[in-house]
Amino acid sequence: MLGEFEQIAQIMAPLAEKVEGAFALKNDAAVFSHQAGYENVITTDTLIAGVHFFANDNPRDIAHKLLAVNLSDLAAMGATPRYYTLNASYPDTIETDWIRAFAGGLGDMQDRYGIHLLGGDTTRTTGPLTLSLSAIGEIEQGKSLSRQGAGIGDLLCVSGTIGDGALGLLVAQGKLEDPTGILHKRYLCPTPRVELGQQLVGVAHTCLDISDGLMTDFEHMNVTADIHINDIPLSTAAQSALQKDSTLLSFILNGGDDYELLFSIAQNRQNELVEIAQNSATKISVIGRITDKKQTCLIKEDGTQLTDLKKGYRHF
Amino acid sequence: MLGEFEQIAQIMAPLAEKVEGAFALKNDAAVFSHQAGYENVITTDTLIAGVHFFANDNPRDIAHKLLAVNLSDLAAMGATPRYYTLNASYPDTIETDWIRAFAGGLGDMQDRYGIHLLGGDTTRTTGPLTLSLSAIGEIEQGKSLSRQGAGIGDLLCVSGTIGDGALGLLVAQGKLEDPTGILHKRYLCPTPRVELGQQLVGVAHTCLDISDGLMTDFEHMNVTADIHINDIPLSTAAQSALQKDSTLLSFILNGGDDYELLFSIAQNRQNELVEIAQNSATKISVIGRITDKKQTCLIKEDGTQLTDLKKGYRHF
Repeated sequence: MLGEFEQIAQIMAPLAEKVEGAFALKNDAAVFSHQAGYENVITTDTLIAGVHFFANDNPRDIAHKLLAVNLSDLAAMGATPRYYTLNASYPDTIETDWIRAFAGGLGDMQDRYGIHLLGGDTTRTTGPLTLSLSAIGEIEQGKSLSRQGAGIGDLLCVSGTIGDGALGLLVAQGKLEDPTGILHKRYLCPTPRVELGQQLVGVAHTCLDISDGLMTDFEHMNVTADIHINDIPLSTAAQSALQKDSTLLSFILNGGDDYELLFSIAQNRQNELVEIAQNSATKISVIGRITDKKQTCLIKEDGTQLTDLKKGYRHF
Repeated sequence: MLGEFEQIAQIMAPLAEKVEGAFALKNDAAVFSHQAGYENVITTDTLIAGVHFFANDNPRDIAHKLLAVNLSDLAAMGATPRYYTLNASYPDTIETDWIRAFAGGLGDMQDRYGIHLLGGDTTRTTGPLTLSLSAIGEIEQGKSLSRQGAGIGDLLCVSGTIGDGALGLLVAQGKLEDPTGILHKRYLCPTPRVELGQQLVGVAHTCLDISDGLMTDFEHMNVTADIHINDIPLSTAAQSALQKDSTLLSFILNGGDDYELLFSIAQNRQNELVEIAQNSATKISVIGRITDKKQTCLIKEDGTQLTDLKKGYRHF
């Protein structure tokens, strides 16, 4: 096992080498700035072995997810990712090779999203592997997307497909079959919708990322909607699983780990969605409409309402 | 125990209420900016129960230390603290009352240093209480202090008194008596030298904060020095402990948790130190001089050299 300083110099510092203000991770703090007319956007998430991932998951996948969940939050604000800091608390079971592979995964995500390591802290813990990451982006001043501000009549939209993450967790737990491996992969390595978020700036009235489940996160918009279940986009793998077991619908609607964007736009801008989807190479589906009703209605194909769904994931 | 959302809304959100860009902690990410002509400075540290503090320490003291160790890093860069984010991973033993007291401690530090909570993440852990905090400050562009750049002949200076934190840890471990309680208090609640750091901008050639021990942190300057042991400032409590047991000198020179600033200035600016000390209400001591020798020399009162000191604290 490399010592603390050697590990930082040999494994982590290369991730920061393109950022002058990271001082090769040798200083007490790092320096960064935003362009004139822009502002910083910051988000932070902690992932813990046994809670948010499995201790024996591939370190590259853990690195992917750690960055993805944070980039997803930046995407929900419409921000362009720039930097991140990492707090890693390693149990004794973590060896240097593990850290090298983990850093490899971070490097892949850096290349994909144009972000760079800015600083961090490495500690030893008697508990499970605990990883906190803060992602920093920038956005034109006053332009960030928000969870509040949906108007009655707005179209409610989602990116990608819903439910793969929740079903993928069932796969990881050995509770569901996944012949193609797609559900498990979507759970392990979610895709943050960074380009879509940027495209939605100045277009969407509200935006958030679905991390706790579609229905739970929708509640954060503080409005009601008619949502058409059949319009909720499902992957072929999810459709196939649902056909075999219709009770999985509750996991699809309420399970976490989608990391898709949920957003609302004015009805008269619907025609812009095609170009936005194209520019961001991301599928967009209209799943419903904001209403002035007292309650959100989940509407089935036959026009009747679905009731009695379990609630989404909360940490406690 | 309050639920996750209620806890954030009731206990943490008040700490963010003066920051518009924190969106009452209800958004996916937070927004902040620096003044024109300035840049951001960011640092992050993790404290873990059983490693960096004792699980039964007062939650207000833990909050103090968590912010202090990060503000100390900003101080070492000369930055003005502005915001912080908090990742808290709570074991099941942590109750709502504990979190309220912890937030009270954060609030006290906010009032003292003019900083505000910007965002964070709350999780449950099967391991020990784990707290990661990132502090963000700002500084005039290109003016940040650095660990590198000490010139031969520079005076080497420290703030406050050295060794109280290391001796305070011995007190906490029941290995040392502390009749006045000062050593223990200095260990629990270090004082970040924020005002001094700001005063040193444009004056000091190098600056860092002493967290791993005076001698270990001095090595990060990558220079050698003649350091006069008798000029190293000790508190009355530390002097008294050292008189009873001279082997404590190793703890004083190599123990961590001082959170004093170690900096170098050109010899011809020594006369500015009096005013800087006055403006920052911080004691400053010249403890030696940067040399072109191959090794750093610890010089005793009689002019002979001290050798054979143990090394400072490393996490692994």
